[in-house]
Amino acid sequence: MNQLPDHHWPRRVAILGVGLLGGSVALAVRRRYPQTTIVGTARQREKCDRLLAAEIVDAATTSVAQACADCDVIVAAGPVGSIAGAVMQAAAAAPPDCLITDVGSTKAQIADEVAQDPRAAAQFVPAHPIAGSEKTGFEHAAADLFDGRLIVLTPTAHTASETVDRAARFWRSIGGRVQRMSAPEHDAHLAVISHMPHLVAALVARLATDQARPLAGSGWADITRVAAGDPAMWADICAQNRPAIAAQLQRLAQELERLQQILQVTDPQAMEIWLAEAKQIKLQTTHRD
Amino acid sequence: MNQLPDHHWPRRVAILGVGLLGGSVALAVRRRYPQTTIVGTARQREKCDRLLAAEIVDAATTSVAQACADCDVIVAAGPVGSIAGAVMQAAAAAPPDCLITDVGSTKAQIADEVAQDPRAAAQFVPAHPIAGSEKTGFEHAAADLFDGRLIVLTPTAHTASETVDRAARFWRSIGGRVQRMSAPEHDAHLAVISHMPHLVAALVARLATDQARPLAGSGWADITRVAAGDPAMWADICAQNRPAIAAQLQRLAQELERLQQILQVTDPQAMEIWLAEAKQIKLQTTHRD
Repeated sequence: MNQLPDHHWPRRVAILGVGLLGGSVALAVRRRYPQTTIVGTARQREKCDRLLAAEIVDAATTSVAQACADCDVIVAAGPVGSIAGAVMQAAAAAPPDCLITDVGSTKAQIADEVAQDPRAAAQFVPAHPIAGSEKTGFEHAAADLFDGRLIVLTPTAHTASETVDRAARFWRSIGGRVQRMSAPEHDAHLAVISHMPHLVAALVARLATDQARPLAGSGWADITRVAAGDPAMWADICAQNRPAIAAQLQRLAQELERLQQILQVTDPQAMEIWLAEAKQIKLQTTHRD
Repeated sequence: MNQLPDHHWPRRVAILGVGLLGGSVALAVRRRYPQTTIVGTARQREKCDRLLAAEIVDAATTSVAQACADCDVIVAAGPVGSIAGAVMQAAAAAPPDCLITDVGSTKAQIADEVAQDPRAAAQFVPAHPIAGSEKTGFEHAAADLFDGRLIVLTPTAHTASETVDRAARFWRSIGGRVQRMSAPEHDAHLAVISHMPHLVAALVARLATDQARPLAGSGWADITRVAAGDPAMWADICAQNRPAIAAQLQRLAQELERLQQILQVTDPQAMEIWLAEAKQIKLQTTHRD
């Protein structure tokens, strides 16, 4: 992370869709670049007023074109299903050297849609910050949300390296660690480590019976925590990354069948080994809470 | 909870197996009854020395008979597979009016085994405190572990009501809220809300690939937290509650199949409804973290 102050870049940043992630980008940009003007968009005028009252952004508008004019950086931060459209709208309104990035949890379908618009594709460096929470809304936004977090960038072979470097610099400047991979790789890995696990948390919640629920302890609370997330947002993620998620649900079904066999074998040693292997993977996996 | 100090009861408490739960019982008893002598047992002399050095207990011995002599309350706190044996050993050594209780996560098989020994059965009030953590060992014990937590008591129809009342009074005195149910009911509900979810956490951990693990975020960390628990302890729980857990894995497999169909239908509305139902159950379930 470049620790030198740089008050000249970016002069103006637009956040398209100001929820938990978009709001946190706004607060992190303000922390790093106090002179920068931050513009947010919302579909409703009333939400614009609330964004201004909460001092998340310096200006708020329902017009993407108005927000993007004269920007140096634009961050598309709405639901994943809306990102490709927002990126293309932004490219049409922004200066040609403006960097456009996003925060979507899926990447391949967004990139495919944006690829239809060469101008937008040239300016767009897709990004996925591995940060968030089951909470939603700018009310929970935090300037330090990205500090130390991995930001996956998925530029295509056609993205100019200078543009990718600017995106990396932007995300590092607001606290993130940057890693590049292809969009299909990203989506396959996220299905394994985020999308399928999210659906599993919902499965466990759904199976809780009325009689059993009063006996829920901290284990159940943790396992199901993300099931409190926004259903529309996650349905959207499932729609965008369907084949990769379907493949992971299939792996889950196979491993579940194996577990059922191990349980039936009445060999406590086999179950202990199976659990010990899970524990080892768990303990080897570094993450930040 | 009786707030009046009562320095006369119990005069001497034995904890058979002093790990996270047994150690927390010891600390909670000392907090409530500072004059009470607390004796712990361990299989190794060296562990006895560490218990004394850590001031978890006032005395420590490798002899269950020695620990139980002259006790008013005995708490069997070893692995679930060892509890029935410990209760019967304790009953043979303790005064006939001594209360014997336990902390096991499964109840029916323990009760069945203890029922073979009428003297032990008469003194034994099985208990399961819904409290714990993926951490193990007396080093993580805490005097407030049971504060506000549900303690499920599963006395049989043969248990004298006075004995059940003493058990309820004991557990309330160290912070718990007491609820009674039958052992088979307890085991069925725990399979739903704890044992099956624990195995699911291990499933999710096992499915993490080396390429995906660096992308793990806080959601994955929460879902898999309990997979860091003690494999031997959980293999033991699975062995004790096998049929109920098998039934819950079957429900899980059926719901997973339904989820796979919903994902394939490419109807985002159906997925959103499925997720919204899970969210509602999650939010309706009260638990203490």
